Amino acid sequence: MKKIIFNFDKPLKLVSGQELPSFELAYETYGQLNEDKSNAILVLHALSGSSHAGGKDGWWEGMIGPGCPLDTNKYFIICSNIIGSCYGSTGPSSINPKTGKPYGLDFPIITVKDMVNAQKLLIDHLGIKKLYSVIGGSLGGMQALEWAITYPNEIKSSIVIAATSRMSTQNIAFNETGRFAIILDPNFHNGDYYSYNTKPTTGLSLARMIAHITYLSEKIMDQKFGRELKSGKYLFDLHSIEFEVQSYLRYQGEKFVERFDANSYLYITKAMDYFDVTKELPNLKSKIKFLIIAFTSDWLFPVEQSMEIVKLLKENNNNVSFSLIDSDKGHDSFLIDIEEQGKIVSSFLEGLKNEI
Amino acid sequence: MKKIIFNFDKPLKLVSGQELPSFELAYETYGQLNEDKSNAILVLHALSGSSHAGGKDGWWEGMIGPGCPLDTNKYFIICSNIIGSCYGSTGPSSINPKTGKPYGLDFPIITVKDMVNAQKLLIDHLGIKKLYSVIGGSLGGMQALEWAITYPNEIKSSIVIAATSRMSTQNIAFNETGRFAIILDPNFHNGDYYSYNTKPTTGLSLARMIAHITYLSEKIMDQKFGRELKSGKYLFDLHSIEFEVQSYLRYQGEKFVERFDANSYLYITKAMDYFDVTKELPNLKSKIKFLIIAFTSDWLFPVEQSMEIVKLLKENNNNVSFSLIDSDKGHDSFLIDIEEQGKIVSSFLEGLKNEI
Repeated sequence: MKKIIFNFDKPLKLVSGQELPSFELAYETYGQLNEDKSNAILVLHALSGSSHAGGKDGWWEGMIGPGCPLDTNKYFIICSNIIGSCYGSTGPSSINPKTGKPYGLDFPIITVKDMVNAQKLLIDHLGIKKLYSVIGGSLGGMQALEWAITYPNEIKSSIVIAATSRMSTQNIAFNETGRFAIILDPNFHNGDYYSYNTKPTTGLSLARMIAHITYLSEKIMDQKFGRELKSGKYLFDLHSIEFEVQSYLRYQGEKFVERFDANSYLYITKAMDYFDVTKELPNLKSKIKFLIIAFTSDWLFPVEQSMEIVKLLKENNNNVSFSLIDSDKGHDSFLIDIEEQGKIVSSFLEGLKNEI
Repeated sequence: MKKIIFNFDKPLKLVSGQELPSFELAYETYGQLNEDKSNAILVLHALSGSSHAGGKDGWWEGMIGPGCPLDTNKYFIICSNIIGSCYGSTGPSSINPKTGKPYGLDFPIITVKDMVNAQKLLIDHLGIKKLYSVIGGSLGGMQALEWAITYPNEIKSSIVIAATSRMSTQNIAFNETGRFAIILDPNFHNGDYYSYNTKPTTGLSLARMIAHITYLSEKIMDQKFGRELKSGKYLFDLHSIEFEVQSYLRYQGEKFVERFDANSYLYITKAMDYFDVTKELPNLKSKIKFLIIAFTSDWLFPVEQSMEIVKLLKENNNNVSFSLIDSDKGHDSFLIDIEEQGKIVSSFLEGLKNEI
């Protein structure tokens, strides 16, 4: 694996009508591109992910590697950071060439389609005409759907995991609470906190805590923490962190602010809110092989929402497989419950070889 | 209906070991107490409720009145505000007799049992030896269970709606995010905001927004707001409130801060977190008739948690009925989906008449 920066030096026209004067994408690759460049798989990350999907501490470490479901002995795996993010790609913390200062809230609004359009330019740059597959969970799954809609002839298959055809009302509502927390943090300074040498850590931390609850299932939270107390007894004190689950959430929040930019959180959650391809999917007529995967205990993107994708894709007779995986780990299953997901993905990819 | 203040002028010993030097409870009554004082029903309110349950704009207006499920032609209905609240009862915004200033965070930690103990003193004061029933939803349901445990001979029946035998890990986690929002609001001043002539409105508002999502079902949110846009189109702007559901949530937050005290929110959610009667219920041996009611779409206190109450009560052969109501309105069903709930409650109460 190696992290590379792809620099696109021309303007990128955005869905909003605005444009990015130029942009960079950080990406990593694993395995070898074969001679006819037909074995490339693009891995698409979720809200807070990066290009570091495979290898040590990669967010999909168990999925990518020799003999893994995304087998680097067979496939050339590319994982690109999305625009708007803060892991080496152009986003609100990048320098605005017009001002020489970080964009902040002058960064244009981006959508999932814009993320995909930027990735397409990277794929062109790599000289790949057709991707063997695009695959991702959560926001990554949305991108995998968007790839199919925008570039139906440039992908052979699309694997959409723990995702949806449209961001639900409840999820927009949860995102709203997270953004509200960030924007109202006194250290936010209308997105220009970079100039103040500070960060809206409290707001971003709280946003992450709220979101983190939605990533887990009630059952797994109960199993992991139950009503366990840090000191073994009630302290009858408002200031103390008494329950293990409180401590865990605070820790998740604190860890997150060290690694993620608050403005990126605003922009990417907004892009997710905008995501709605319920009109596009029934009109899609493609040769793409789709694999839709859902997890039983995922309540952020519940099974019904994956089934809705299947239904919409079938309206125009697209080729769709659907797998429901029994898991108690909630939405995060796609990141941590690798075994069954891996088997399904690898056999699906293997099956594509027999296709023309 | 008339709002009355019950003043208890002696110390109230609390579960924590601390005590309140004295306390007041605001309560309202509806209907007439009969001669042998055997027709009194105590209505128990939820987190942000008040004693104003019946009559115009009462939080259970449709449940209480002549000919209503809690029929004031038959029953004498009492609804008491809980200690810790801010609707006329002693809570953190009340004057601390020791300092002449509001308690703030010097208010002692309270539990559901303390709320019930305070109410019991009110019932004694009214000269009522045995309540015909205690009834409540959510935190009110927890109180109805606690009444049965603490005063099993002083109640004839207990109606526990949309509640639980122990606050779940997920719900403690959600409460934690709400309290975090309040405590980190710069206007919180460690709970002493009264002295600064300000209020942590941002934090409390956000706490309410988060909680409000948990009160509704995903389905009803989708039906009410879907992905409707306020201006009919995407604005591609981070500052705008684009989706109707965003606007609705903000409004819920703003409305709430006008009527509720942030410290009360901290103390009452903490009391809920402490609630766990899973050890007490199986040891209870009583003549109480229990009615447990759950709503299919309630994911804050899901059906399984009501069924767990039933199971625990049956271990010692307590008399328990269970009703599951099909509703798509989520946890708030107990407040708004009155019709079927009302029928079940009224026929249960009617049935008690034939009991000795």
